[in-house]
This record gives sequence, C-alpha cells and structure tokens, in this order.
Amino acid sequence: MIGVLGGMGPLATADFFAKVIAATDAQDDAGHVPLLIHSDPRIAGRPAALLHGGASPLPALLAARDRLVTAGAQGLVMACNTAHYWHAQLREDCALPFPSIVDVACAQAAQRFGNGARIGLVATRATLATRLFEPALHAYSLSLLAPTDAALDDWILPAIALVKAGHTAQAGPLLERAIQTMLDAGAEGVILACTEAPMALVDAPLALQARCLDSSTALAQATVALWRQLQSATLA
Amino acid sequence: MIGVLGGMGPLATADFFAKVIAATDAQDDAGHVPLLIHSDPRIAGRPAALLHGGASPLPALLAARDRLVTAGAQGLVMACNTAHYWHAQLREDCALPFPSIVDVACAQAAQRFGNGARIGLVATRATLATRLFEPALHAYSLSLLAPTDAALDDWILPAIALVKAGHTAQAGPLLERAIQTMLDAGAEGVILACTEAPMALVDAPLALQARCLDSSTALAQATVALWRQLQSATLA
Repeated sequence: MIGVLGGMGPLATADFFAKVIAATDAQDDAGHVPLLIHSDPRIAGRPAALLHGGASPLPALLAARDRLVTAGAQGLVMACNTAHYWHAQLREDCALPFPSIVDVACAQAAQRFGNGARIGLVATRATLATRLFEPALHAYSLSLLAPTDAALDDWILPAIALVKAGHTAQAGPLLERAIQTMLDAGAEGVILACTEAPMALVDAPLALQARCLDSSTALAQATVALWRQLQSATLA
Repeated sequence: MIGVLGGMGPLATADFFAKVIAATDAQDDAGHVPLLIHSDPRIAGRPAALLHGGASPLPALLAARDRLVTAGAQGLVMACNTAHYWHAQLREDCALPFPSIVDVACAQAAQRFGNGARIGLVATRATLATRLFEPALHAYSLSLLAPTDAALDDWILPAIALVKAGHTAQAGPLLERAIQTMLDAGAEGVILACTEAPMALVDAPLALQARCLDSSTALAQATVALWRQLQSATLA
C-alpha cells in the first residue's frame, strides 16, 4: 500500500484521498489503490516553524513516516506543499519511493503551459520564502511570478485559513482575485501550490480553473502511477 | 489516534473521513481528530463471502486491525456496515474501544424517529440475510421494515454497484425509489445501512433526506466523541 503523510490540514488530506480515487480507472473496489493515510492534525504548524522560529514539525513527520513504513507502506507521498521543505530529510534513511508534490506539479505545469512559461503560485508565505518551487520550476524551464506581499496578506493567507476552518465557499472569491491578478500580470498558468486552495475553487469560473494546475491532483495521479509501477515490479 | 478499517469501498471511506472532519468543531488544523485510515480495497468482498461461500475477509480485516494497533491506534472504527458481521471477532483479543456502526446508527434512529418506530433499511442483501441490525433495532425498541427482494435487485444493489464504480449521480434515483417505497409501506424512518448509500443521495429532495439516517455520519460523530473521551482520560 501507499502511505500518505497528511493532516496538514485534514480537509486537504480528505480531498487528496478523493482525488486518488477519481484518478483511478476502476469499476469496483478491487481496482483501487490501497492507501494508509496518516492524518495527524497535531503536527506543528509549518509556516510558524519556517517564518517565526516555532517548533519544527520534522520530529512528528519522521515518526509518522516510520509508523507508515512499519505498517507496510511500499511507497510514500505527502499531501502538503509547505511540508515539502523537509522532503529531503524525510527521504534520508528511507529507501521507499517518495515522489515530491513540487516535482510532479512543475512537470505537469510545463506540459500544460509550455516550456518557458511564467507560472504564478498560490502558496503559503513559507513556501515562497523558502523558495521551495524554484529549483523544480527552473528544471522545467519555467519562470516564477510570485504573488505580491499584499496579495498574500489580503487574499491568499486569509483564504487558506478559511478553508482550514471549513469555510471553503468564503475562501473562493479571495483566491480568484489572487489568481486573476497574477494572470493579469503575465502569468500563463498558476500552480495551486497549497493543498487547501483547490477546495476553495470548485465553484470558480471554468475559464479561471483552466489556467490553474492543482498540485493535489498532480500528486494523486502520481500516486496511482506509483502503485501501478509497484504492482508491475511485483509481477515481473 | 483513531484507526479506521476502510476501503470497503474507498469512496465510502473518503466520505467517512470528510464526515469526521465536518462533525468536528475546530477552527484550525490542531482541533481535528488524528486518524490513521487503512483503506484497503483488496479486502475480499463481504457479500460474496456471506452469501456465496466466497473467501472470507476476516484474515485481511484482522491483519489491518493489528497493523493499526501496532501503529499506535487508541481506538478503532470500521466504515462498512456489512463487514460488521465480523465486528465481534475483530474485538476479540483487542482491548481498544471499537464502537459499532450498527449500534450508533440504531441509537440515533431511536432518538430521531422515536421509540417503537418502524425502520426501513438501505443495506446489502448480506447485511439483511445475516440479520445484522436486528439485535440493535430491538434493543432500541425499533422494528424492522426490510426492503423486498425486488427492491434489492432492482434499486438498492444496482445503486451500490454504481457508487462503487464512481457513478454516484446515476445511483440517486434508484435509491430514492427504494426509500420512498419503504416510507409508503409504513416506515417512519430509513437507516442508510450501507456507507455507499449517502453519497448517492446528496441531491435527493430534502424532505426525503430528512427521513434518512446516515450510518456513516452517525459513526463519524461517534468517532469524534470517542477521541474527545480518550483525550479527557489522558488529561484526568
């Protein structure tokens, strides 16, 4: 089975779970991907740790990883962009395949929006401040159009907090303004680089949705592909 | 954390996960219930085992339970009604609290529809044939109005199969007819005693929804209550 490091937040993990199911071509239960989902909302806040010297989530993430490995996970994924700051450390001493949400989102963005495209990001301030996406964007010849500080403070961060409090509908208009502003500034596409974001946009205009690449859906598709690959390896 | 035996089917488990989150009064991540969700769609089919002498799912369910216990679960729940046929065996040699979806659904039905009420069931043929709900219904002075064989064959079982194949919208009208027929025959309320059923009814008329008690939501509420109880016990 595939182990999922989640709970950051829980609603985003539930949304990721539903996206893995939707990405699976199956007519009955048995065709679906076996998952072991570790949804621990007590993991220390990622932005607080990265921006304000708060407690590090790394010990809890390592413990969750080890719990999933012990329980028999054959591969790992993590349904939170900001937490990928610790992705390299989580891969240390762990031989399991563990695709990165950052890599799969950038790979899909290059395919969808073309080589050399300017890409906006809907992300936490911590994801932006740690330049988490820049190596992968550059690897795919994409350039970054980051949201302004004002867009973060007025629209993106309040929208993420609203989703975490369960108010997804109220978060929608805020994110739409943030995305439209990046498109107006020249972005060819926008990566929803926070797993809370896509839930706020289910009722957004389709033309706007078409310009957005959902990192959570990209990781869900990579999860299904990884499971199929593990199955073929077992049969081979 | 609370361990969840799931994957029967996966979409029903994802729906249960979302219902635990919705049943939680939390303003941020940290207020939510930590869950470890074992979603294994390879567990042998429950109806096939109970009705047609197919392979028993019990060994896989026991293995999943043990995996969750080893990983640190402090309580267990199982997001599948039919699989509760094995609930007593899963509780053997396991000291963890493990509320039954059958008990919590019948307790809520008694509260909502009143003592002595006649209760219809939307359930698999296996759940009905094994009389899984009868002891709990009787314990709450409720009487059973089972669907007819024709209602099972024409509406309920095809609807469950449609949900398992991801076609929830097509399943809706079939279940609505099954429920209306039980209400017309004198049921005061209907327990959705299959975790696939509620997903088919999200667009059903509100008057009909009001006559239905969702076993998955009842178990989600019991899960939150169990977690709060475990937390108080730790603090006490």
